[in-house]
Amino acid sequence: MSRPDDTMSAEDRLIAKYFRPLATDPGAFGLIDDAAVVTPAPGRDVVLTTDGVIAGVHFFPSDPPGGIGRKALRMNLSDLAAKGATPLGFLVSVALPAGTDEAWIAAFAAGLGEDAKRYGCPLLGGDTDRTPGPTSISIAAFGTVPHGAMVRRSTAKPGDAIVVTGTIGDAALGVLLQREQKLGPRLGLSDAMVAFLMQRYLLPEPRNALAETVLHHASAAMDISDGLAGDLAKLCRASGVSAEIDAGRVPLSDAARAAAAADPALFETILTGGDDYEIVLTLHSERLPSLRAAAKAAGVPVTEIGRIAAGEGARFLRGGQAMTFARPSYSHF
Amino acid sequence: MSRPDDTMSAEDRLIAKYFRPLATDPGAFGLIDDAAVVTPAPGRDVVLTTDGVIAGVHFFPSDPPGGIGRKALRMNLSDLAAKGATPLGFLVSVALPAGTDEAWIAAFAAGLGEDAKRYGCPLLGGDTDRTPGPTSISIAAFGTVPHGAMVRRSTAKPGDAIVVTGTIGDAALGVLLQREQKLGPRLGLSDAMVAFLMQRYLLPEPRNALAETVLHHASAAMDISDGLAGDLAKLCRASGVSAEIDAGRVPLSDAARAAAAADPALFETILTGGDDYEIVLTLHSERLPSLRAAAKAAGVPVTEIGRIAAGEGARFLRGGQAMTFARPSYSHF
Repeated sequence: MSRPDDTMSAEDRLIAKYFRPLATDPGAFGLIDDAAVVTPAPGRDVVLTTDGVIAGVHFFPSDPPGGIGRKALRMNLSDLAAKGATPLGFLVSVALPAGTDEAWIAAFAAGLGEDAKRYGCPLLGGDTDRTPGPTSISIAAFGTVPHGAMVRRSTAKPGDAIVVTGTIGDAALGVLLQREQKLGPRLGLSDAMVAFLMQRYLLPEPRNALAETVLHHASAAMDISDGLAGDLAKLCRASGVSAEIDAGRVPLSDAARAAAAADPALFETILTGGDDYEIVLTLHSERLPSLRAAAKAAGVPVTEIGRIAAGEGARFLRGGQAMTFARPSYSHF
Repeated sequence: MSRPDDTMSAEDRLIAKYFRPLATDPGAFGLIDDAAVVTPAPGRDVVLTTDGVIAGVHFFPSDPPGGIGRKALRMNLSDLAAKGATPLGFLVSVALPAGTDEAWIAAFAAGLGEDAKRYGCPLLGGDTDRTPGPTSISIAAFGTVPHGAMVRRSTAKPGDAIVVTGTIGDAALGVLLQREQKLGPRLGLSDAMVAFLMQRYLLPEPRNALAETVLHHASAAMDISDGLAGDLAKLCRASGVSAEIDAGRVPLSDAARAAAAADPALFETILTGGDDYEIVLTLHSERLPSLRAAAKAAGVPVTEIGRIAAGEGARFLRGGQAMTFARPSYSHF
């Protein structure tokens, strides 16, 4: 079988050394073939998603390389979780500027491998290139669901309860804090709070532990990557319904709560900023108790924040008044 | 259902306008969901591959945008063809510099859509981003094969015949001609020959028409993307065998033959340059007649160029002498 040797190109040697150990699935053929193969269990559909990160756009070039690999994979795992899918594996395309040293590649691959193992989502194949531009990572991830059972955005029904996982807005605040060193002290945040919010940006925690629960309980779901307000508006548009959210019930971390208390304008950042990688799901309200029990068993906090109704648009109510946002949704474009 | 409207982001509007028409598979949900879903027919495996292009590395920024989209897709279709797989669909990640105008996006999507239709490989999902770097397109493509039947690189056997499709080296010459305007006249090539070679670089013709034949006849196969010499060496290394090629039998187009006659040093470029997107396959020599018949029926030229033997390495013989190459394989890295 193939091994690093003198007749291999530099590209093949790097792949063999750093990426082959991540390709634990037999269908990856140790990354020596043109393609990988997977055999979904009978009666299972394959769920496919793709998402990527670019230095200077989605991460800071100085961010630790292991974290960059992990974040890129986790963004995709979050999509699979929101669809109720069990991870199957992923493909990665890596474009690196000339001068990227081997230590960077080693650390990037190590981070990626750590999460591939943690989430049971092995590397199936990839593509490496030099680029005259910034470091760019694109991942395509795959999972499976029972046939016909993928949880969609477009199937929320009037009367459904709206639930979110975890806490909202931490990553959006984390970006601000990373960009502006003096913001933390100005808001009176402790060092621990600043570190917590930055970490929420650097390394999201996809809710794959809840995927099975989403599959069994949700009428519709999506992952929150472009801000709760904008993403909920997308879900409503896809479903042909409206949403009414009690803004006071949106779950906040202690750090986010402290930031919003110090500067109330940050509440809009919390509701509209990107990179939460939590799940927003809708479900028949009678299912709320069993959802709560399943989420508790999975160790994932869930909070009911509002209801789906007929009509269109997602309204956030505070003190009985509908909030208006200057920039309702994060767009990379 | 979702439609372009005022509450959508610029990104969503562009996707809805230019990419949604390509998402003809019901499992793509009109690109409004986080993920797509596919249901492989019972008894079929899913074959996965990824490949991408970056402006200034794999194409010239001034190349027609429709051709860029088509080339990126065809590179992946070529991998599927070499594995014997029938296309199922693809995901595309598009990173565009600020200032990319809508006409570029429209032409890019139109080209992509044309080939998605031609090859029966619909768009399943994607990701669009702004980049501070060059235009970058990454595609992940999927196909299916009967369970366990994916044609691999690692299964060539001593005694097998070695066959290639089409003609070799055209694209490598096409790049040289595109880089150096005076080369064509200096080599005495006609304008038609120059145009032919450049076109072979700009728009490869993946051999998906031969996929079924590869599946039924090949003992091993791969697509030739990094040069015949280097890719055949990879196949030999993966299979634990050697190859002996009669260099005089390697099929050349009239244009490539004329170029090599004018400058014999170009024969190395022909054998080692990248971007052929032809297939090299091995098969039991008794199967050659039925392979030839099936290839003829599929309209794909095939040529026997040598034999697999025990040992290691791929040797190209000319006049009984083994050729040596300064740079045996194209590496992007």
